[in-house]
Amino acid sequence: MNEKRRKIKLLLHYDGSGYHGWAAQPGMATIQGTLQEAFYKLCGQAVTVVGSSRTDAGVHALGQTAHVVLNDCPVPTENLQKALNRLLPAEIVIADLQEVEDSFHAISSTVSKVYCYTICTDPLRPVFDIRRCWHYPVNLDSGAMQQAAQRLIGTRDFTSFAAAADQRQSSIRTILRCQVLSDPPWIRFEVEADGFLYNMVRNIVGTLTEIGRGRWNPEKIDEILEARDRAAAGPIAPPQGLCLVKIHY
Amino acid sequence: MNEKRRKIKLLLHYDGSGYHGWAAQPGMATIQGTLQEAFYKLCGQAVTVVGSSRTDAGVHALGQTAHVVLNDCPVPTENLQKALNRLLPAEIVIADLQEVEDSFHAISSTVSKVYCYTICTDPLRPVFDIRRCWHYPVNLDSGAMQQAAQRLIGTRDFTSFAAAADQRQSSIRTILRCQVLSDPPWIRFEVEADGFLYNMVRNIVGTLTEIGRGRWNPEKIDEILEARDRAAAGPIAPPQGLCLVKIHY
Repeated sequence: MNEKRRKIKLLLHYDGSGYHGWAAQPGMATIQGTLQEAFYKLCGQAVTVVGSSRTDAGVHALGQTAHVVLNDCPVPTENLQKALNRLLPAEIVIADLQEVEDSFHAISSTVSKVYCYTICTDPLRPVFDIRRCWHYPVNLDSGAMQQAAQRLIGTRDFTSFAAAADQRQSSIRTILRCQVLSDPPWIRFEVEADGFLYNMVRNIVGTLTEIGRGRWNPEKIDEILEARDRAAAGPIAPPQGLCLVKIHY
Repeated sequence: MNEKRRKIKLLLHYDGSGYHGWAAQPGMATIQGTLQEAFYKLCGQAVTVVGSSRTDAGVHALGQTAHVVLNDCPVPTENLQKALNRLLPAEIVIADLQEVEDSFHAISSTVSKVYCYTICTDPLRPVFDIRRCWHYPVNLDSGAMQQAAQRLIGTRDFTSFAAAADQRQSSIRTILRCQVLSDPPWIRFEVEADGFLYNMVRNIVGTLTEIGRGRWNPEKIDEILEARDRAAAGPIAPPQGLCLVKIHY
């Protein structure tokens, strides 16, 4: 192994409002693309910043994790975080940066991920948080939502909660914990799983709100899981309420 | 008095980040201009929305108050708020709307105003609040700032804290209360006065932070007030930390 080769692990916070999601796309403002540009400016080399999750447009993070390999970069590791943060726009910040073993991989080393989804039920839209929550001015029964959420825990086939476009081989995932927390007019949904299918959290939240507003009983969750059909679940919740809060390794 | 003439009082919340301040300017996105456009669309008439304070670009409000006169508008008062909020962009909302006596005037009926200024002292910039605070990653002595703030209370000549451009006849104002509240890494400054000179709150905050970081003692405030010279005070704090929270009538 080349002594000048370093593997760097990044902990990232970002407000995804103005970005076309994580994944770099030519001519588009993306989180990955913006980070890669900062590395290019600082280290003079094209790098790939590998993120644990490809968050969608408008989705936020307070705990995205990524890795990057630097070759012969003259900047010492202890100076990288400050220097990169100076180059990054206000909405993206590297909250922690460390050199790690070469065996670490932001995607394949992941043990579990935690997402949080925020709903505001106030009749008045919250102007300061409007890009960080789903403004859904409806009376929601958070107790019924919490009962429904408990029925999702465990190892199950989540096909009904995956975007039809999801091409992954297996739809089996394990939800380790999930919880509906009510702090009127706010409702927060927190979920930890070993992995998520495409749009899975937003589809679960959309379904929980149907239960919260009384369209379905909490037991409906069992029926939806059983159906293994996206059409059985509720509508998708909008992206701006979603935040990736933690990757466990 | 024409029976079809109605004077309407508005309570407004807005995130001023994307706006060139309150005052309507041709070809610019402004809070006043955006409100007037919504009234035009709904009521079919050009109105002037008179705001209690002309907040600057980037400044926010959770309690701006305004009035507007409607003539022969077919929309009943009880439907105006919802209908206007549907026409307004996400960052602006009418939090309350009432018909008031014709004698009410958003500017001249004002008894006092309350502003709040938010500083974040964390080394890491707060990506979710970066447009709603001043990110000033410096160790600030909030006790010294609070002592200094107390010395501002009373009826005084605030020339030293007014923008040089301020053309008002009198620089005498009465600060009724002001307070520095520390909730690390956050520092909040709240001030109530019978009126404010142009840039007065931001100039006070910039001066208090100079005291907080130890450049000056709290007693320096007396000297600055005495000088009646803008050059005697500290630098101006940036607009995004400022929020107009209440107009008392």
